Amino acid sequence: MVVKKPGGLAGIEAGQTMISTVGKQGMGLTYRGYSIHDLASYGTFEETAYLLIYGKLPDEEQLANYKLKLAVSRQLPDPLAKLLELLPAASHPMEVLQTGCSALGTLEPETSTRTAADIADRLIALMGPMLLYWYHFHQSGARIQTQTNDDSIAGHFLHLLHGSPADELAVKVFDVSLILYAEHEFNASTFAARVTASTMSNYYSCIITGIGTLRGNLHGGANEAVMALISAFETPDDAEVGIMRMLADKKLIMGFGHRVYTVSDPRSDIIKNGSQKLSLWAADSQLYSISERVEQVMRREKSLFPNLDFYSATAYHFMDIPTSLFTPLFVLARTAGWTAHIIEQRSNNRLIRPIATYIGPDSLTWPTIDKRR
Amino acid sequence: MVVKKPGGLAGIEAGQTMISTVGKQGMGLTYRGYSIHDLASYGTFEETAYLLIYGKLPDEEQLANYKLKLAVSRQLPDPLAKLLELLPAASHPMEVLQTGCSALGTLEPETSTRTAADIADRLIALMGPMLLYWYHFHQSGARIQTQTNDDSIAGHFLHLLHGSPADELAVKVFDVSLILYAEHEFNASTFAARVTASTMSNYYSCIITGIGTLRGNLHGGANEAVMALISAFETPDDAEVGIMRMLADKKLIMGFGHRVYTVSDPRSDIIKNGSQKLSLWAADSQLYSISERVEQVMRREKSLFPNLDFYSATAYHFMDIPTSLFTPLFVLARTAGWTAHIIEQRSNNRLIRPIATYIGPDSLTWPTIDKRR
Ligand SMILES: CC(C)(COP(=O)(O)OP(=O)(O)OC[C@H]1O[C@@H](n2cnc3c(N)ncnc32)[C@H](O)[C@@H]1OP(=O)(O)O)[C@@H](O)C(=O)NCCC(=O)NCCS
Ligand SMILES: CC(C)(COP(=O)(O)OP(=O)(O)OC[C@H]1O[C@@H](n2cnc3c(N)ncnc32)[C@H](O)[C@@H]1OP(=O)(O)O)[C@@H](O)C(=O)NCCC(=O)NCCS
Repeated sequence: MVVKKPGGLAGIEAGQTMISTVGKQGMGLTYRGYSIHDLASYGTFEETAYLLIYGKLPDEEQLANYKLKLAVSRQLPDPLAKLLELLPAASHPMEVLQTGCSALGTLEPETSTRTAADIADRLIALMGPMLLYWYHFHQSGARIQTQTNDDSIAGHFLHLLHGSPADELAVKVFDVSLILYAEHEFNASTFAARVTASTMSNYYSCIITGIGTLRGNLHGGANEAVMALISAFETPDDAEVGIMRMLADKKLIMGFGHRVYTVSDPRSDIIKNGSQKLSLWAADSQLYSISERVEQVMRREKSLFPNLDFYSATAYHFMDIPTSLFTPLFVLARTAGWTAHIIEQRSNNRLIRPIATYIGPDSLTWPTIDKRR
Repeated sequence: MVVKKPGGLAGIEAGQTMISTVGKQGMGLTYRGYSIHDLASYGTFEETAYLLIYGKLPDEEQLANYKLKLAVSRQLPDPLAKLLELLPAASHPMEVLQTGCSALGTLEPETSTRTAADIADRLIALMGPMLLYWYHFHQSGARIQTQTNDDSIAGHFLHLLHGSPADELAVKVFDVSLILYAEHEFNASTFAARVTASTMSNYYSCIITGIGTLRGNLHGGANEAVMALISAFETPDDAEVGIMRMLADKKLIMGFGHRVYTVSDPRSDIIKNGSQKLSLWAADSQLYSISERVEQVMRREKSLFPNLDFYSATAYHFMDIPTSLFTPLFVLARTAGWTAHIIEQRSNNRLIRPIATYIGPDSLTWPTIDKRR
């Protein structure tokens, strides 16, 4: 068992929520009361996003209308397309999303009729097209059309990425991954977005805070870091040697451990199952075996378990998604959770403003410029 | 005396800092040990920024080099200028800064040789030009040159804004306002920026979080809200009636109160003095008298004192700065403080991730779609 250090607000209750439970006794991980297992087995990402943003599962008519709303929101405004063309080919796609969402905020600002929920739906539908318009433009010079007749966000994204409708299995696992990524209580990006919301800032600013915070390797960026890690190994034995060396060097192994979970991450087995199926479908058993070996070594050596990011990396890889798009896909999904939290924060707001313990110098006398060294 | 409610992490120690004290007994407000009174009386914004970012006051040579570094950083990269032209004239300047800084992150990314401190200096020098390039382009179609031979950020900004070198008094008060705005411990935007830094995200993302969080009316946005409030009154008596009515309606009066200070904000008297001088210089005694009356009413009725934002609003107004640029100027100054905190957070990092108290529904059974209402 790992021993947790103090600091980082670990275990500190920073507020109340009705949105989700993370590892709560008797409940595990739930979104608005529904277990993550039911959501992943019976639900879709669209139902999950609706549940998070609007507070309840949609009925048949609501779901149909919601999907229609998302489908008509796939079109990029012209100035946004132009702006995406100006961002260098070497940009990180997270920066493309950050800049794109920020620019969209100037084109389609929040108003009393264009609410946070409306903008959330727009962003969930448009983040994929934004990324892939920029991506294809800089790969091949193509200015892609972002409309397809795919029924789901998952199908639409893979279709735009690869230029042809995606395989059913890939769409299914991708959809599940979006469900798993959609919400996770007061994780760092959500908490940061709530701090932004607590000053009464606008909705876009909260989401942009979320994007910037998710990017770090200790958070959403871990899924890309995992891919970099495991793709450097040739065989499972190679991975074993490599991980043992990294642990001896006291290096962090990305995709393992969690601030709140202590025994396992309930999302991991679900995505592991998807990753395994896709490895067979993609006929790439080596990479999957490497991942499994890394998992074994980490359990044996550190009693650490894979978190959601670990097997998400290979799952996305088997779908032929470029690694640099992994964290942006996490953003797309988490926008649903962030939005639920922004709305909740606003509904009963108090400025989030802690204090610091001062450990700096005592009062200093002002030195004139010739007295400074 | 106002009674503080629980929540919002009020009074919770969220970490350690060596950067500043806010209302600490025997010290008051200090930046790295130097009192805000000394900084405002004897220092300049450039010295303050250097102190915050590099940890000590510059000597003569360091200051000269630093000013040179800032001066050569005033040039907008070409794609950034193009991008600013694409943002609508009706954008809020805070969105322009947010989008511009995000785009700059793709053009001049953080690397081992372009460090957080380097980017901070670049941003401090470039935020004014970014804003004013966009501003003039949409006001008159002019594509302004952003180089001048002004010696200070304050002089440079006012020169670019008005198209001619600014009056000495305006430059001086503006410089003082930047000093006062530069740093303030774990205020909401700085704390949010530290949460972003704690995931090991990149520097730009932390700053963009800061910008989005500062924008809210309970934080930096207050200076614009103050201007809207007081400019609606014709006379001091008018203001008295208006404020009494707002208080009776339980409305918040912008520019008053503070999470940490309970008796006064030590920055307020300094900027009030500047505002008063400028009111004489601008021959606009009415607006200043209105502000003073609002202050009197708030003290008498609520024992609430003006915070930094209250008299900053009139000070900026007397310098003929458009109201929508007030909060962006706060950003420019606070970038120094944010940067100090980002560097400090990184130097001894632990992920900032609190927990929530769950008050939502118990476990719910999954309903098939035909069973939902
Ligand atoms: C998620 C994470 C940030 C949680 O951080 P935390 O709650 O602050 O955890 P702690 O730093 O208290 O960890 C306790 C100990 O376990 C070790 N540990 C935790 N995760 C580890 C990992 N992935 N690899 C190796 N060691 C790890 C820590 O180094 C620490 O050991 P130490 O006391 O000898 O320094 C951390 O587990 C981590 O960095 N994981 C890798 C990044 C990742 O996968 N992030 C995605 C999270 S969904
Ligand atoms: C700065 C501020 C957010 C601090 O918030 P806080 O620490 O959570 O303060 P509280 O909400 O606990 O305030 C305590 C009481 O004083 C009242 N109060 C505080 N500031 C007030 C103001 N500016 N106008 C009217 N009443 C105010 C609150 O309404 C509350 O009264 P209640 O208990 O009857 O609801 C708050 O004072 C405020 O909103 N000020 C106006 C915005 C502003 O100027 N922000 C810039 C800060 S530098």
